[in-house]
Amino acid sequence: MQNKDYKQLHVYAYMRSNRIFKHTSDVDAIVLLNGTEPHVDMSFFYVTGLTSGLFEGCAAIIRPDNMEIMASTLEEESARKGEMEVTVFSNKKERDALLKEKLASLDTIGINADEMTYSSYLSLQNVTDAKLIDVSQAIKKARLIKDISEIERTRKACSIISQVADEIPDLVTESMTELELAAELVYSMQKKGASGPAFSTLVCFGKNASEPHHSSGTTPLRHGDFILVDMGALFERYVSDITRTYIFGKADEKQIDIYETVLESQRIGLKTMKDGMSGKDVHIKVKNFLDQKYKDRFIHGLGHSIGLSVHDGERMSEDSPLVLKEGMIFTVEPGLYIPGYGGVRIEDDVLITTEGVEILTHANKELQII
Amino acid sequence: MQNKDYKQLHVYAYMRSNRIFKHTSDVDAIVLLNGTEPHVDMSFFYVTGLTSGLFEGCAAIIRPDNMEIMASTLEEESARKGEMEVTVFSNKKERDALLKEKLASLDTIGINADEMTYSSYLSLQNVTDAKLIDVSQAIKKARLIKDISEIERTRKACSIISQVADEIPDLVTESMTELELAAELVYSMQKKGASGPAFSTLVCFGKNASEPHHSSGTTPLRHGDFILVDMGALFERYVSDITRTYIFGKADEKQIDIYETVLESQRIGLKTMKDGMSGKDVHIKVKNFLDQKYKDRFIHGLGHSIGLSVHDGERMSEDSPLVLKEGMIFTVEPGLYIPGYGGVRIEDDVLITTEGVEILTHANKELQII
Repeated sequence: MQNKDYKQLHVYAYMRSNRIFKHTSDVDAIVLLNGTEPHVDMSFFYVTGLTSGLFEGCAAIIRPDNMEIMASTLEEESARKGEMEVTVFSNKKERDALLKEKLASLDTIGINADEMTYSSYLSLQNVTDAKLIDVSQAIKKARLIKDISEIERTRKACSIISQVADEIPDLVTESMTELELAAELVYSMQKKGASGPAFSTLVCFGKNASEPHHSSGTTPLRHGDFILVDMGALFERYVSDITRTYIFGKADEKQIDIYETVLESQRIGLKTMKDGMSGKDVHIKVKNFLDQKYKDRFIHGLGHSIGLSVHDGERMSEDSPLVLKEGMIFTVEPGLYIPGYGGVRIEDDVLITTEGVEILTHANKELQII
Repeated sequence: MQNKDYKQLHVYAYMRSNRIFKHTSDVDAIVLLNGTEPHVDMSFFYVTGLTSGLFEGCAAIIRPDNMEIMASTLEEESARKGEMEVTVFSNKKERDALLKEKLASLDTIGINADEMTYSSYLSLQNVTDAKLIDVSQAIKKARLIKDISEIERTRKACSIISQVADEIPDLVTESMTELELAAELVYSMQKKGASGPAFSTLVCFGKNASEPHHSSGTTPLRHGDFILVDMGALFERYVSDITRTYIFGKADEKQIDIYETVLESQRIGLKTMKDGMSGKDVHIKVKNFLDQKYKDRFIHGLGHSIGLSVHDGERMSEDSPLVLKEGMIFTVEPGLYIPGYGGVRIEDDVLITTEGVEILTHANKELQII
């Protein structure tokens, strides 16, 4: 993000806070109060549009007509890039005194309970007599529908990660470890302009592929192994999230059947999704298809929204009330997991439109025995 | 982490929960209830010792004599590696019903307010009539003193990152961007066995070095620039955190003076630290030294504890009540920041001993004009 773009960001920032207030009319202001990393409210970056800085312990006060930031000395320079009002404090005592003063006239304050620690809640309660009202749902609803600036950043994050995925067949060699492949992939995404991995890059060889959240380790790659890679790139704070599965050397019939079944199930999902569809219905349609052949081997939701966070608010799953809307960005990631044997997952990121979906991740996903 | 070590981890896990209970006697059990990434309580991994898995929405119930995990279907395989009791749920409703049943006999439940979202607090409140008592301080106290297993992992994370730092002089070339250097560094740490960067690798060229939390960008390296690199490696969930500053091509007298002043201030800090010293006193001693020459250009605390998180509970700063104890691991990171000009920070990780400190990061820190 170059300096010339900050003014534009500022405009987006106000559009975003207005979007939040549209979903909640019963608060005078919203206060976001960060804890210590990793417990920083990503909505702080949503409303301020700031692309650099950590902002631990910092606050944003968002009113329908203006926004201000309370930044620690450490974050002052980062905060001032936002061109909004910034007040600086040098310790928690000073911050709390400032908050007390600034919140004195308010009767009702909105808080983001989903991303605020209970300690921060208690801190806020200590400095105001206002009624604290949870507006998590309003913030989530606003964040679910992406604006042009968010879509462009996500598109770039998806483009980077797709290019990286297409390099996998050339990167793998027999006996290399999961961690070694992960290193190559993270290197490649950063060389292509990502500010870093969006989450810990997941490389699973062989039977490790049966564990959806396996951590990459020192398992070496062997002939006949599944290679499951789940990774994402971070671009100006926005994430992508892709999974590709390959088979190394030679594939047996069962491996091929699992692969083709998952791929077909994803096609069914992608064809079903569009503005107005229930996320639960899409999930169930895909799950029913997978259950026909591999009963109860699909053990997670079909997808989740992405944005500033990897799990950015909603899911397509059995118990989700979500209705897909134009402008949402979701992963679509069916998988089959056979403990002790292995697994296949195929994941793409898509933008919901009125007609269907636009696929943002373009890496090859036909069966590849590499 | 190889399978053979899990039994050992299990032993450490019980030692750790006992350590927490030693600091708090007024609860029947402690419940850790995770939110969605990044709002997962790192203490969950502290007490369980689990090295793989995300455990979003999962819970740990810790009693003085046993521990159990409530894992989502997605995390079942990861959870079972811990060899403790695991109950599996497939959605939030099932989880809450299970929690209700398991907590029914308890009168008082400890919670970790610092790492629990307010939403998780409300969820817990909904399933129990027990009194919820914040035991953040007890958990923090326990986590501050590292056991052998934690020290060994941190030592390895520090060793990896020190080797990476010593490669910087050979990696930099004129006109390369901050992000390109960051990519090389992350690649190198992963090739050396890190599971990933401990936090977003910070590379600041030229005047960007004046911003302590600058995000690496497309700024190219120019003759005469400061090169400030702040990075960490993650090894089996434990972090290291190092900063080195160099000058590219040629250095002017002011740059050299700033560098030598910061280096000398770090020596003063390192010499002062030992079991029994007040963290505030160490900070003030270093700050006073820096203020003599560069008034008010040292704008953050001298250091923070590290462990499962980069900011792992305590700080050495002006308003900190911390007393250093044997077994704590802290960063020591004085810096000077001149807005519009640049800055220098030098950071090492140290283990506190009764005699002083053991420095865990061994990268060269004499002035290098490269």
